[in-house]
Amino acid sequence: MKKKLLTCVLLLMSLFPALAQESSNTYSAVDFIWIILAAVLVFFMQAGFAMVETGFTRAKNATNILMKNLMDFSAGSLAFFALGWALMYGNSKLGLFGWSDFFLTSANTFSNEGLFQYASWLFQVVFAATAATIVSGAMAERTKFTSYLIYSVVISGIIYPISGHWIWGGGWLSQLGMIDFAGSTVVHSVGGWAALVGALFLGARSGKYVNGEAKAIYGHNIPLASLGVFILWLGWFGFNAGSTLAFAENIGHIAVTTNLAAAAGAVTAMIVIWVIDGKPDASMSLNGALAGLVGITAGCSVVSPINAMVIGMISGILVVTAVIFIDKKLKIDDPVGAISVHGICGAFGTLAVGLFAESSYAEAAGYGPVNGLFYGGGFSQLGIQLIGVLAVAFWVLISSAILFGLIKSTVGLRVTKEEERKGLDIGEHGMEAYSGFQIIE
Amino acid sequence: MKKKLLTCVLLLMSLFPALAQESSNTYSAVDFIWIILAAVLVFFMQAGFAMVETGFTRAKNATNILMKNLMDFSAGSLAFFALGWALMYGNSKLGLFGWSDFFLTSANTFSNEGLFQYASWLFQVVFAATAATIVSGAMAERTKFTSYLIYSVVISGIIYPISGHWIWGGGWLSQLGMIDFAGSTVVHSVGGWAALVGALFLGARSGKYVNGEAKAIYGHNIPLASLGVFILWLGWFGFNAGSTLAFAENIGHIAVTTNLAAAAGAVTAMIVIWVIDGKPDASMSLNGALAGLVGITAGCSVVSPINAMVIGMISGILVVTAVIFIDKKLKIDDPVGAISVHGICGAFGTLAVGLFAESSYAEAAGYGPVNGLFYGGGFSQLGIQLIGVLAVAFWVLISSAILFGLIKSTVGLRVTKEEERKGLDIGEHGMEAYSGFQIIE
Amino acid sequence: MKKKLLTCVLLLMSLFPALAQESSNTYSAVDFIWIILAAVLVFFMQAGFAMVETGFTRAKNATNILMKNLMDFSAGSLAFFALGWALMYGNSKLGLFGWSDFFLTSANTFSNEGLFQYASWLFQVVFAATAATIVSGAMAERTKFTSYLIYSVVISGIIYPISGHWIWGGGWLSQLGMIDFAGSTVVHSVGGWAALVGALFLGARSGKYVNGEAKAIYGHNIPLASLGVFILWLGWFGFNAGSTLAFAENIGHIAVTTNLAAAAGAVTAMIVIWVIDGKPDASMSLNGALAGLVGITAGCSVVSPINAMVIGMISGILVVTAVIFIDKKLKIDDPVGAISVHGICGAFGTLAVGLFAESSYAEAAGYGPVNGLFYGGGFSQLGIQLIGVLAVAFWVLISSAILFGLIKSTVGLRVTKEEERKGLDIGEHGMEAYSGFQIIE
Repeated sequence: MKKKLLTCVLLLMSLFPALAQESSNTYSAVDFIWIILAAVLVFFMQAGFAMVETGFTRAKNATNILMKNLMDFSAGSLAFFALGWALMYGNSKLGLFGWSDFFLTSANTFSNEGLFQYASWLFQVVFAATAATIVSGAMAERTKFTSYLIYSVVISGIIYPISGHWIWGGGWLSQLGMIDFAGSTVVHSVGGWAALVGALFLGARSGKYVNGEAKAIYGHNIPLASLGVFILWLGWFGFNAGSTLAFAENIGHIAVTTNLAAAAGAVTAMIVIWVIDGKPDASMSLNGALAGLVGITAGCSVVSPINAMVIGMISGILVVTAVIFIDKKLKIDDPVGAISVHGICGAFGTLAVGLFAESSYAEAAGYGPVNGLFYGGGFSQLGIQLIGVLAVAFWVLISSAILFGLIKSTVGLRVTKEEERKGLDIGEHGMEAYSGFQIIE
Repeated sequence: MKKKLLTCVLLLMSLFPALAQESSNTYSAVDFIWIILAAVLVFFMQAGFAMVETGFTRAKNATNILMKNLMDFSAGSLAFFALGWALMYGNSKLGLFGWSDFFLTSANTFSNEGLFQYASWLFQVVFAATAATIVSGAMAERTKFTSYLIYSVVISGIIYPISGHWIWGGGWLSQLGMIDFAGSTVVHSVGGWAALVGALFLGARSGKYVNGEAKAIYGHNIPLASLGVFILWLGWFGFNAGSTLAFAENIGHIAVTTNLAAAAGAVTAMIVIWVIDGKPDASMSLNGALAGLVGITAGCSVVSPINAMVIGMISGILVVTAVIFIDKKLKIDDPVGAISVHGICGAFGTLAVGLFAESSYAEAAGYGPVNGLFYGGGFSQLGIQLIGVLAVAFWVLISSAILFGLIKSTVGLRVTKEEERKGLDIGEHGMEAYSGFQIIE
Repeated sequence: MKKKLLTCVLLLMSLFPALAQESSNTYSAVDFIWIILAAVLVFFMQAGFAMVETGFTRAKNATNILMKNLMDFSAGSLAFFALGWALMYGNSKLGLFGWSDFFLTSANTFSNEGLFQYASWLFQVVFAATAATIVSGAMAERTKFTSYLIYSVVISGIIYPISGHWIWGGGWLSQLGMIDFAGSTVVHSVGGWAALVGALFLGARSGKYVNGEAKAIYGHNIPLASLGVFILWLGWFGFNAGSTLAFAENIGHIAVTTNLAAAAGAVTAMIVIWVIDGKPDASMSLNGALAGLVGITAGCSVVSPINAMVIGMISGILVVTAVIFIDKKLKIDDPVGAISVHGICGAFGTLAVGLFAESSYAEAAGYGPVNGLFYGGGFSQLGIQLIGVLAVAFWVLISSAILFGLIKSTVGLRVTKEEERKGLDIGEHGMEAYSGFQIIE
């Protein structure tokens, strides 16, 4: 009798091959659709960064900033195709970097897994480009276009993939148990630290510090900057919820924490600057939304909605104070606040996992039973997160210092004073951004 | 023998738990993906509203409008999280309002249903924010920012959820059989009636009516406004087709009716204003597209494509005549035409269900066999729709009159004459939208 | 014993109707979701075209260009609904045109297939509108709005659907074996050739050619144009990967080839113009990205990622040389480079299938074992592709010459000199695009 039933079962199993496979490593239609559409949303963040960086700087440099954004994605895509993907997701060498599948050769089969590899690559390339784009904001309005092309390719092709390998490619930090679900550290703080080094090597824009005092240089197009923030917020749903890397039922939870952190970040930053300055400044509020988004990125899948709101609030406070501190005390000229938004809030967001993670969420997200400090986890996870933050900061600061040092001593990093005064649009690209408009400055 | 088969069946059923559950209330991967991506599209409508409202008003108030749009979504998200969701979808109290699940606590389980709750919340919060945003257009260029923050939170957190409960939360209007598939009334006319009350309490912009005659105050950025309309049209595919609230095979039909109504609205409004004014005015044509979209929202799933086109055409005629009537006869100053687009066309769209609904479509959409007046249904459905339109209008007019009255008599609704003249960007936020550009006005 | 098992199997099959159907022609939830979301992405390309065309032309004509883009989609949707769909996908008459299903009547059933028809229509209507939009760029800044409305409807409703039928509707070119996966020829070169004819019938903008020498007329808003290119790139993921017309596992591969071609096109065009002009011109680089996208469209599913990069590079070279040649040698005034981007690169992309197609990819994409010239296929596929390119070019050149000839000799194609000088915004629509801004020109 048992035998008969067994035969019956086996026979039927063979009739439903899809079901039989479900336990193996195949990807279903919803996995493909989810990852590709998430990638498409993240791709659109390039437009968001372009609009934010353009809007927050001066009209005379707009074309230059747009070309930089176009090129870091274009040249960056090619660099990640040739090299970056291999270094990040190739077979690991001692947990330090990958080394296989250059030019995406691993996907050259027509199996289900081979075809899914393409979708994964698309999702990863838009992440790589995000890291590079962040840097362009901090170095806006004074960097040579040629130098920009060089460092943008090196960041997408080498610097980002190596620390990325440590955390997402099976490298040593992932083995240690570090959690950075969607990249507060992997993507944002990598961009933020490189931005810091770039801004230091470049020096401030002329006219920014007069007699040791910081002068405000206003952005020329707040509508564009606002549109950019909305586009980034939109793209972030793909960025965070797509980091499941295949369909998963917790994508709704991730989208909710993402949204609440952004909302709380915007409201909090507005309140903080209102208290400090007496007016609800728009730039700070917009950066507050981005700060909340960066802050929730590492922990979006392992914290509760309420704590997502708390993380957003803290990020909103951090970004306002960091922007003021970096601008007025450290006297580092970061035209769009990239170091504060991506570096500081990226580091905080990564640590926040060690504070707010709850086992129930962490297990649903595919991690083990991880609890942050406030949920009985003690300092262990927080310690691991801290190691990760410091290690990546160390790697990026060193490697980008070498990179920018080499560029500065060869082709040079900065345009001439005369070109800076006239604007990089004419100087670098031979055209104005707003032909026909009367621009005063 | 029967027993054996039964055992065989039961054994196999236990091997396929997913299939066994299918008849119960579980949500599949496509439900999750559909709702989240639809929500993401609707979220993007915030950018669309921001661009439309900014483009149709003056450069000196652009930053203010953008901040209002950023904040009604940000503060509104938090208000809907804390309160609105509970009032709208909590356990019904006498069919009048919900009362449970504050701070989304109901979703704090990791069951399929619990996780789907998050996705549903995301979809609902973007709808709540839409209602609030509509108001900002009618009250543009003269409202205090603080007052805006207050009423925006009250609309998202209280006014919108309560009438929403009546129709979508299982309340008394849904029990009566009212059909408002994606919210011509629930979302748009709620926004429109609140906009009407707000514009009345505020009064016209200075310079708008001179010696009792309406003067045109031109928008400053038609490209931005046009971009905004395209973004709204895009988002509307999520707004309407996502209102299936789970995957359904009629999403294609819904997207088609949505598109045809928008197209017909734009073309018709252009023709009407061309006949009246002698030129095909761009603002009216853009508003015509929006009017068609608002008009089809209630009935998008229950009418034929041809009738969707008819609804769009009528909406296009209505919006042009309403804008002119409100501006020149009623002398109510609505800078972007929000009352006409969302209030008038929202009410018409809701009634259109009672005219054009066809049983075949209605049944496919999950309603019973509902026929409109023109399809043998008599006046019954039309009557129910009318009750719904009037009841919601009554609720919103009364509640928002109390709200705006309270604000006016405490913190005040309107900025000073001096501030209005100089622009709210400088007055409220201490910064210009277009620094460096020569602005004449 | 066998009988029992058979009974058991049949009994169980009846319990899982969904599985039993899978082999028939039904469309699954993922098919619906994929096609609708791809269509939504392609719809958004309308905004992209609007921004690119507006940004690359002068401020005084911005409203006019935006109205044209709004109307070619709006009026075009209605024309494709009434007529175009029937001519393109109706029952074929001798392989020359379709003739059934006017007003989408075929979808008026509630079967799975009937409902999927709606989704398909949505995808096709956004393609039809794309072809029409392309023309508006080449004819910008001097065309009468009324004339534009007429030819836009004729292109969407008649010219595009007929050649579309030949390749996608089961017509003679598809029977011959022509491969144009997502429309390098069907959509882009149709738009490009009609643009060429339109520009010839119209003549150059006044001031463009002085003493036989081409003068540069600069675009007024590079940020908008850049945003437009990012939106188009975004939409192209839907355009190409959605052309599977149902879910398929090679959508990842298609998205990757699409992205690499665009990136290579942008980088190559930048390098080429840098070498020629001494500066990395932004307009050319942006057009390079579009050229790469147009070039990969026909072969996106049948070439390898490396060859996609090569196709993008060649397109980047072609677009720069073609723009210069058409502008300076042929002295045809094409303000945005539409003939070069869509016509030349569309033709090249179609031929590229005959050069770079590989059987392995072609079979995965549902074609037979097709190899291009470089993969042992000899000249046969290349010859078929060439026939297709020439036949469609012939059809469009002739039919649009008749169309533009008729318009020119009746209502007229061109605005008056005076109106052209003052700008079409005031002349055609009675409003400025940027009220309040000081515009010099």
